[in-house]
Amino acid sequence: MSKPLNIGMIGYGFMGRAHSNAYRKVNNFFDLEYRPVLKAVCARDKAKAQAFADTWGYESVETDWKKLIARPDIDAVDICTPNNLHKEIAIAAAAAGKTILCEKPLAIDTAEGEEMCKAVEKAGVPNIVWYNYRRVPAVTLAKQLIDEGRLGKIFHYRAVFLQDWTISADLPQGGAGLWRLDAAAAGSGVTGDLLAHCIDTALWLNGPIQSVTAMTETFIKERTHTLSGKVEQVKIDDACAFLGRFSNGSLATFESTRYARGHKALYTFEINGENASIAWDLHDLHRLSYFDHRDDSIIRGWRSIHVTDGDQPYMKHWWVPGLQIGYEHSFVHQVADFLEGLANKKPVGPTFRDALETQKVCDAVLASGKSRQWVEIG
Amino acid sequence: MSKPLNIGMIGYGFMGRAHSNAYRKVNNFFDLEYRPVLKAVCARDKAKAQAFADTWGYESVETDWKKLIARPDIDAVDICTPNNLHKEIAIAAAAAGKTILCEKPLAIDTAEGEEMCKAVEKAGVPNIVWYNYRRVPAVTLAKQLIDEGRLGKIFHYRAVFLQDWTISADLPQGGAGLWRLDAAAAGSGVTGDLLAHCIDTALWLNGPIQSVTAMTETFIKERTHTLSGKVEQVKIDDACAFLGRFSNGSLATFESTRYARGHKALYTFEINGENASIAWDLHDLHRLSYFDHRDDSIIRGWRSIHVTDGDQPYMKHWWVPGLQIGYEHSFVHQVADFLEGLANKKPVGPTFRDALETQKVCDAVLASGKSRQWVEIG
Amino acid sequence: MSKPLNIGMIGYGFMGRAHSNAYRKVNNFFDLEYRPVLKAVCARDKAKAQAFADTWGYESVETDWKKLIARPDIDAVDICTPNNLHKEIAIAAAAAGKTILCEKPLAIDTAEGEEMCKAVEKAGVPNIVWYNYRRVPAVTLAKQLIDEGRLGKIFHYRAVFLQDWTISADLPQGGAGLWRLDAAAAGSGVTGDLLAHCIDTALWLNGPIQSVTAMTETFIKERTHTLSGKVEQVKIDDACAFLGRFSNGSLATFESTRYARGHKALYTFEINGENASIAWDLHDLHRLSYFDHRDDSIIRGWRSIHVTDGDQPYMKHWWVPGLQIGYEHSFVHQVADFLEGLANKKPVGPTFRDALETQKVCDAVLASGKSRQWVEIG
Amino acid sequence: MSKPLNIGMIGYGFMGRAHSNAYRKVNNFFDLEYRPVLKAVCARDKAKAQAFADTWGYESVETDWKKLIARPDIDAVDICTPNNLHKEIAIAAAAAGKTILCEKPLAIDTAEGEEMCKAVEKAGVPNIVWYNYRRVPAVTLAKQLIDEGRLGKIFHYRAVFLQDWTISADLPQGGAGLWRLDAAAAGSGVTGDLLAHCIDTALWLNGPIQSVTAMTETFIKERTHTLSGKVEQVKIDDACAFLGRFSNGSLATFESTRYARGHKALYTFEINGENASIAWDLHDLHRLSYFDHRDDSIIRGWRSIHVTDGDQPYMKHWWVPGLQIGYEHSFVHQVADFLEGLANKKPVGPTFRDALETQKVCDAVLASGKSRQWVEIG
Repeated sequence: MSKPLNIGMIGYGFMGRAHSNAYRKVNNFFDLEYRPVLKAVCARDKAKAQAFADTWGYESVETDWKKLIARPDIDAVDICTPNNLHKEIAIAAAAAGKTILCEKPLAIDTAEGEEMCKAVEKAGVPNIVWYNYRRVPAVTLAKQLIDEGRLGKIFHYRAVFLQDWTISADLPQGGAGLWRLDAAAAGSGVTGDLLAHCIDTALWLNGPIQSVTAMTETFIKERTHTLSGKVEQVKIDDACAFLGRFSNGSLATFESTRYARGHKALYTFEINGENASIAWDLHDLHRLSYFDHRDDSIIRGWRSIHVTDGDQPYMKHWWVPGLQIGYEHSFVHQVADFLEGLANKKPVGPTFRDALETQKVCDAVLASGKSRQWVEIG
Repeated sequence: MSKPLNIGMIGYGFMGRAHSNAYRKVNNFFDLEYRPVLKAVCARDKAKAQAFADTWGYESVETDWKKLIARPDIDAVDICTPNNLHKEIAIAAAAAGKTILCEKPLAIDTAEGEEMCKAVEKAGVPNIVWYNYRRVPAVTLAKQLIDEGRLGKIFHYRAVFLQDWTISADLPQGGAGLWRLDAAAAGSGVTGDLLAHCIDTALWLNGPIQSVTAMTETFIKERTHTLSGKVEQVKIDDACAFLGRFSNGSLATFESTRYARGHKALYTFEINGENASIAWDLHDLHRLSYFDHRDDSIIRGWRSIHVTDGDQPYMKHWWVPGLQIGYEHSFVHQVADFLEGLANKKPVGPTFRDALETQKVCDAVLASGKSRQWVEIG
Repeated sequence: MSKPLNIGMIGYGFMGRAHSNAYRKVNNFFDLEYRPVLKAVCARDKAKAQAFADTWGYESVETDWKKLIARPDIDAVDICTPNNLHKEIAIAAAAAGKTILCEKPLAIDTAEGEEMCKAVEKAGVPNIVWYNYRRVPAVTLAKQLIDEGRLGKIFHYRAVFLQDWTISADLPQGGAGLWRLDAAAAGSGVTGDLLAHCIDTALWLNGPIQSVTAMTETFIKERTHTLSGKVEQVKIDDACAFLGRFSNGSLATFESTRYARGHKALYTFEINGENASIAWDLHDLHRLSYFDHRDDSIIRGWRSIHVTDGDQPYMKHWWVPGLQIGYEHSFVHQVADFLEGLANKKPVGPTFRDALETQKVCDAVLASGKSRQWVEIG
Repeated sequence: MSKPLNIGMIGYGFMGRAHSNAYRKVNNFFDLEYRPVLKAVCARDKAKAQAFADTWGYESVETDWKKLIARPDIDAVDICTPNNLHKEIAIAAAAAGKTILCEKPLAIDTAEGEEMCKAVEKAGVPNIVWYNYRRVPAVTLAKQLIDEGRLGKIFHYRAVFLQDWTISADLPQGGAGLWRLDAAAAGSGVTGDLLAHCIDTALWLNGPIQSVTAMTETFIKERTHTLSGKVEQVKIDDACAFLGRFSNGSLATFESTRYARGHKALYTFEINGENASIAWDLHDLHRLSYFDHRDDSIIRGWRSIHVTDGDQPYMKHWWVPGLQIGYEHSFVHQVADFLEGLANKKPVGPTFRDALETQKVCDAVLASGKSRQWVEIG
């Protein structure tokens, strides 16, 4: 029989749903030693917590996250709160010996992240951050192709994450669903929300970034704040782009924005190597583009790989070739890998420590955006 | 509190998984009066039934479908067997007053299908056939655009369903996973398996087909039969194409095959109207292509609609714009609609009667393939 | 010094321009023994002939094609008239010992075509028909890949030619620019105009077609005739689709129409072989899609080959990799090949005899459309 | 009768061919007051000059550009030499009262460009620089859509120009065909060769750039020099990326490289406005992508506009809808517009003065690449 892993979820928003769905599905599709049990969900508003529990099958609710952490029947804490609460909760959960699954970005800044890393490492608790895109099968396949050495020396890495949902000046900042526009809750704007995803993938696929120069912009300077009801200055970055250099000698160009009309969630990356190149696009996440210069010259071309075959990452667990999976499955894969890591007693990335590296790049980018100088990453 | 609908599943193959997943997920994402309960799964091999029950959370197992149907605690029977068993099971289930969800195609042929329709209609039991592609959001959006009159008079409807998984002559026929190559179990080859999907969608979107002329082919004439262990004649159609005329005056061109190298499950359709055209492709099922001649002439072009917004069919129940869903969700939508129909006491298509129309076209196509004559559809 | 080939052009419409451009350009880009000289253009309306001659640099004009053919300073006659005049002109030109370049389709029907073939063969004059799409570099590359045996046994060949320019019922038939709607001038509608292109390519790439069953339709039954000023019955086919069998055992599905909203000139073909598949699309004619099953399984995918490299057909004569050529260049290539054939005294296809095979398929298709029976092609 | 414009071409390389083709074709397709006459071509190597003259129909050859400029029968001088000769020739041609058509980039640097601008302006001679991509119909359509105000306030402009032809370390630098790798002849690497195109288009479509921060790289540090025969330091930039700010408040991200495996000449740009966005790609130059947020929400999507209709820029001069033109036609359009400007006595851009603005941005980018500081553009 499978071993239960009792989950205590803190937060009930979009990510609460994505994680809960993953916990519920994972054992139907993956053969695992562990089985997540939806033990409790925590939110300040009891009615909302209960509604969420009813929808998703959580056995109980809490309104104080400290009580949740104190419960002996909780094995693992899933932190789905706004970013500004990650640190305190994570440190308390580590102190209580809980396994921790924390939404990205790890923290508001590197200093907070360092504290969190020390806490989980001191406590020796398993920990992971929800940079889910690593486990889109096409992205995992990209990693595999790189690890097999197919690309050769890397010259270029470029990534963008383009959205258009905050163009209207009428959109308020702050509060449920809009805390991402509120610097107090989010820490930063697109840098922590979108670029952080791009950076996590990049560090994983292409190694460390050494230095960056960045440009940030806040297009709409003031918005009504939902909590205060007043028009307040917008302190987050609406857009952020940076140039940089990876340790392996390749050049980086990154951009993110919420003002790119026509793009809902267009996260793309492309890697150009001496022998081959790879490109991926979140809007068609089940495909990977691949060009191999070693093909016969007359038939060289970018291949559109429909990543739905059983020998491609994760896909033997799902349907049959040609039938695509979607966004939510990346979370299922993360849970599956994490549970396997628990069984094998091996850490599964991105750990807090891995995510701290992303945080450092984000901080350097934001610092460069202010100073207008190149910033080295320690 | 939601009302239980106790499901008895017969069969445990690919479709058994797809349906079970839908039953388990539907209430997490849709607010419904009914809630499916996975009561029992039935398979001749008890160990396999038990393994399936363990994986998916079925409360009990049966090895005789007649016993399953006889159980008073079963409200609805889901028929996921090979095609040649649909009729007998469905008629028995109807006689027992069970709600029935039957895999497609409805039956081996029209005569069987007629019996099944009569049985469910006489018994007055809710019934539906799993032509799931109607409920891919992009396809449902196509239906909406047609119903809004955006296309105008229709001139052309063309569809293909292209696969390549049976090209190897070493592939046997018959048995688990390969019964689709065995005429005794499947009735026909690509006609019932693939064209049936294309026809169901077409009848739904564009109305009745009046007449057809068809061409069928069996490229590999003999294959080892898994059950007998002998090389036997292959009696299914490996490929089938037909031309036809719809009642609305538009022309039909349809093709399906399992010998189209490079295509895993490429179901595409395109509809050309006087004012606008629509195209869809299962390999990127979250997109719909749309051309509107009423756009300003200098900016006319095919639009690639990323069907992930909350105002597009079904999508408010899932994630946020830009984040795609996949194949499995079409089954969730079918369950959601069916349960809503149960609550409202309104039939939800495709009913057995709807699916019988598809069966008639399939039969006409197969008959024309043999006779090399145009065949009228009564 | 290059040898002149004195051209006498009959007709001055769209094709007259395309051919004239080819004659003028060919020696700038190809190193050839022969050099076309624009000697004379012939049209009934002298002013129009003169205007065309001025624009294109023809040295003289004629208003009677018989006089043009009689001129000893004309080496080659280019027939760009409506289809119903091809036969008479070609036979006269052959009798006069002229080299002949004839617009497609070869003739109104097979009987006419037979007479034309006999005439040129009896006279022993070089002859070619302007099925220009064979010499789009991507299409020529397709031929090369097939000839190299990369595809293996062929299972399927499908082609469509979709346009939308005659949807309006207000469009008249007949007269300049609209003779393609007038059966008296054109012989047939889309069959001779569009399907003929698809068939020529298919016979070249995949060998003979043995039998067909077809469906034809005239959506708009009456249109004002430009020449008579009266509303007259439309006698051409607005749309035509057929199924068929090639001699090599592969299945054919073909369709053409001028009622496919959103498609200007969408000629596409796809060939599925045991080992590899090829697809092409006139709307992006500089690309070829190629799938090779022998690629490593995890990176299999359709390659989009940008056919602009020097080792791909014809491309060393043009620009540099990445810089595309267009429609008009297919005519330049045909002239270049034809002139090389003249120098080498080798016939270059499609000859009249080659084009007659296309004509036979067209006739069979039209006959089947009427009889609703399969038609064998002798 | 049309007026002759006697052309004296200096240089006979790739661009010499592209321009000569344009001069020869323009009057076949455009109705113009002027007619280019290919009077003389100049190259140091007489045999090569003569061969070029024979191929293209130049009436005479020169081996000293000063003699060419001195000829009274030359009206216009076309400068197709390596970049380091532009200044001297242009100033001499201006002094001789010649009309000047100069290849891009205008000069080695801004200082040279200033001198050239002063020379042509003092002499009052018509002048233009061959930034040909402005006159790809899809790009001209983008300009039209922007000028019509369809995009609204602009937030983002991003462009890349990606090639892969210098990845091999065996490729030498310098000499015919390879002077672009030799800083002495080219001035810079990808900045002047590729980014200059991107910048010219950007300034035209989106107005001035105020400031930039850049990163440059030379991946292969030494290459054999064709002229010296020795291994020498490579002094050009192999790759260059920059961030910047436009005067209109929009953000710029630009990148160019010759080390992007899989891309032959992938020049793309995208512009995101408040209401609509535009994207273009040189690899499919006959298409424009357009997204309009004002479309009905359920059918919003990126439109792929096949820019081949008569009401789209330049296209009424060519073939019929659906039939694409290519790279070379952008030069024909530039000649057509320039000749029309001569007839109307109106300057046609990009003039030397326009091109100087591009030069200033290039210089700022190169300076920033060295200083690692933001650079303001005066």
